[in-house]
Amino acid sequence: MADSNPVIQLLLTGNEIMSGDTVDSNSAMIAQRLAQLGLSVQRKVTVGDDPALLRRELAQLSRDSDVVIVNGGLGPTIDDLTAQVLADVSGQPLREHPQARAHLEQWCARRNAPLNAANLKQAMLPAAADIIDNPIGSAVGFQQELNDCLIICTPGVPSELRLMLDPVTATLAQRLGKTAQVEIIRLQTFGLGESSAQQIISDAAPDWPDDVDLGFRAGAPQLEVKLTITDAAFRAQQQGCREQLYELLGDHIIGEGSTTLAQRVLQLLQEQGKTIPTAESCTGGLIASMLTQVPGSSTGFHAGFVTYANHIKHSVLGVEEAALAEHGAVSEAVVIQMAEGALRRSGADYAIAVSGVAGPDGGTEDKPVGTVWLAWGSAGQISTRGLCWPVERTLFQTMIAAAGLDMIRRRLLGLSSEPNYFRQRATQVS
Amino acid sequence: MADSNPVIQLLLTGNEIMSGDTVDSNSAMIAQRLAQLGLSVQRKVTVGDDPALLRRELAQLSRDSDVVIVNGGLGPTIDDLTAQVLADVSGQPLREHPQARAHLEQWCARRNAPLNAANLKQAMLPAAADIIDNPIGSAVGFQQELNDCLIICTPGVPSELRLMLDPVTATLAQRLGKTAQVEIIRLQTFGLGESSAQQIISDAAPDWPDDVDLGFRAGAPQLEVKLTITDAAFRAQQQGCREQLYELLGDHIIGEGSTTLAQRVLQLLQEQGKTIPTAESCTGGLIASMLTQVPGSSTGFHAGFVTYANHIKHSVLGVEEAALAEHGAVSEAVVIQMAEGALRRSGADYAIAVSGVAGPDGGTEDKPVGTVWLAWGSAGQISTRGLCWPVERTLFQTMIAAAGLDMIRRRLLGLSSEPNYFRQRATQVS
Repeated sequence: MADSNPVIQLLLTGNEIMSGDTVDSNSAMIAQRLAQLGLSVQRKVTVGDDPALLRRELAQLSRDSDVVIVNGGLGPTIDDLTAQVLADVSGQPLREHPQARAHLEQWCARRNAPLNAANLKQAMLPAAADIIDNPIGSAVGFQQELNDCLIICTPGVPSELRLMLDPVTATLAQRLGKTAQVEIIRLQTFGLGESSAQQIISDAAPDWPDDVDLGFRAGAPQLEVKLTITDAAFRAQQQGCREQLYELLGDHIIGEGSTTLAQRVLQLLQEQGKTIPTAESCTGGLIASMLTQVPGSSTGFHAGFVTYANHIKHSVLGVEEAALAEHGAVSEAVVIQMAEGALRRSGADYAIAVSGVAGPDGGTEDKPVGTVWLAWGSAGQISTRGLCWPVERTLFQTMIAAAGLDMIRRRLLGLSSEPNYFRQRATQVS
Repeated sequence: MADSNPVIQLLLTGNEIMSGDTVDSNSAMIAQRLAQLGLSVQRKVTVGDDPALLRRELAQLSRDSDVVIVNGGLGPTIDDLTAQVLADVSGQPLREHPQARAHLEQWCARRNAPLNAANLKQAMLPAAADIIDNPIGSAVGFQQELNDCLIICTPGVPSELRLMLDPVTATLAQRLGKTAQVEIIRLQTFGLGESSAQQIISDAAPDWPDDVDLGFRAGAPQLEVKLTITDAAFRAQQQGCREQLYELLGDHIIGEGSTTLAQRVLQLLQEQGKTIPTAESCTGGLIASMLTQVPGSSTGFHAGFVTYANHIKHSVLGVEEAALAEHGAVSEAVVIQMAEGALRRSGADYAIAVSGVAGPDGGTEDKPVGTVWLAWGSAGQISTRGLCWPVERTLFQTMIAAAGLDMIRRRLLGLSSEPNYFRQRATQVS
């Protein structure tokens, strides 16, 4: 079959999704991976771990679709019903698949854990099913035909699903006669909101080409701007749009693909043979954590100081007690001394320091929740900025940590500009 | 009608949800609000902004349900089809609703914006529909009967939906004769996998009462165990199950409700008037960040040291160069000295130190990726543990940071026990 518009439907299962305890991000992941093949999901149905409902849905979906991707219900517990339901609907027994059992034995051995009965349930699959490998989790995936429809069963754990989508999309590409024609350029930006970016682009480019789809994905802290074409014939237009975005969004663009601010900063540090310590108060170690999530971060990052209490700012980073008493911990004077202390204590080239009121408590009339000072730079060349960014505590920490990394990125690139966010959130505090 | 198990289904619409550009969190919000009334969502169907698909779904859902909540498609653009689809399916015209128009006029006036044609489309609703107020957005909600089913149409903007769920749930409580009957006890655990927990419970409690629903939610790092009853009459059974879980899962239980390890550690520190510094290598600031995400963490957390490079372990925490040279950075000797250094540098009561190989690179035959040493305790009373936990880098960091917090929790509680995870992952390295 090489239908140009095959019907693909998703069946998502899990009481935790129905109850709202878990937000389903898996179906978005699946849809995005299918989109890379030029395939789209027509409809998705979500039900709880109820065998009767699952049987009815799977039977109906198999009759209405070319492909059904089932997500969830592969775990070891009695709630996990997918294998049994597929066996029931296709009128075949469950049997132990040797390949799945071998996978479970290896999985347990790697963890020095015994293979228990609950795990073994994960090897009991519909007799006719073919196994799909799960490189990291205990639950293998499986697929089989039902009513001329390909049923593909995938695990609910997002990291496991992500890896399994490689063989799944390869299977679909072959079965549906799809070669990857969709080409996407992703630009990662920081410092612009989605509506601002949209406005800038629509004002400056009213004649945007129809063949290049412009999309946005607003994450915290980054905004991804996406240029999608569905045929390689439109590459020239796509490149034109890419150049136009570089002109319009300028130094808000961090990089392409899935580049994060931390990755970009570490890459620049490595290129320049520099290192950066962090001196954090309100972000509480998050900047250090963002940097050290990147494999190989030890080349550019050696030391972080989380100086949450005032006496630690003094004893560890040498911030003067007079500065703390006179200006308060959230002040330009203190973040400068934090950055200087971090440079001194670590012998590094650049430093980033932040101190602010993350809330929900601790705000004052002068310095309300959301007030923050940043300092960054090298010895003798430290820049500062005061902002007020009154959002929920963890979002505040995320955005401020990212803002700190972005200012280091700009310094390493020799830019004197600031992100758009800063202009909108400048504080009068000094 | 006061059916005890009314059928409630959701119809979610939006191309951005189908494409995966947006993750749907609205359906989780709706489900959680309904759960407070003892109502559950039986099934949800998601389709793109396609009038034919929407008409077919809405017609079918109205025949199969007591209530259908439609979410999305109320905006001003041509993609927003919900009002037209409901009018089509119920065989009535769209007409301008004076109340909706007045709402739009006020909404535009507050923004000093003209009322344009796109906005006015939001006042054109099915003739028979009743308006539901939207206190913050331009799109009013609306509801009407169709095939003896109540159809409730709500906006896709999460902040608008959140507010509109107040009148919606009030309507449903009255119509369905529901007062809050569902009661959930949530136990937060660390150190047990879902399958181990399931196995322990099913081995020890084969006669689990039918009226108490046992559920699991595996997050990283915590596993939530949930006891749900649908009627207050089952409270005694629920309490019995709760006590049984405390016996079976013991000190793996961190707390109830939504308690996190960091919250529990901070609570214990506050009760005991103690503080804890962190000395982190492989977790790179994550332990400090987990602690400081908690509002009010400054009472128990004053200082964190991210000593990522060996020379920083020496210069900042006073780890002896000989220990680093002889045993390597990932060693018992070094984590003990890191913990001691953190205690000395901060003047605190307890410390936690970790050093490990997070990967993907940096492993050796002796110390493969996943090898980690933890040290925790107070001056003169420092405990250590070597583990091997070979999982993907960020998951490794998350689980090790949590393990460190858990060992401090156990120390603060005077427990000498270890979590189950440790027994499975003990390393031979010393």
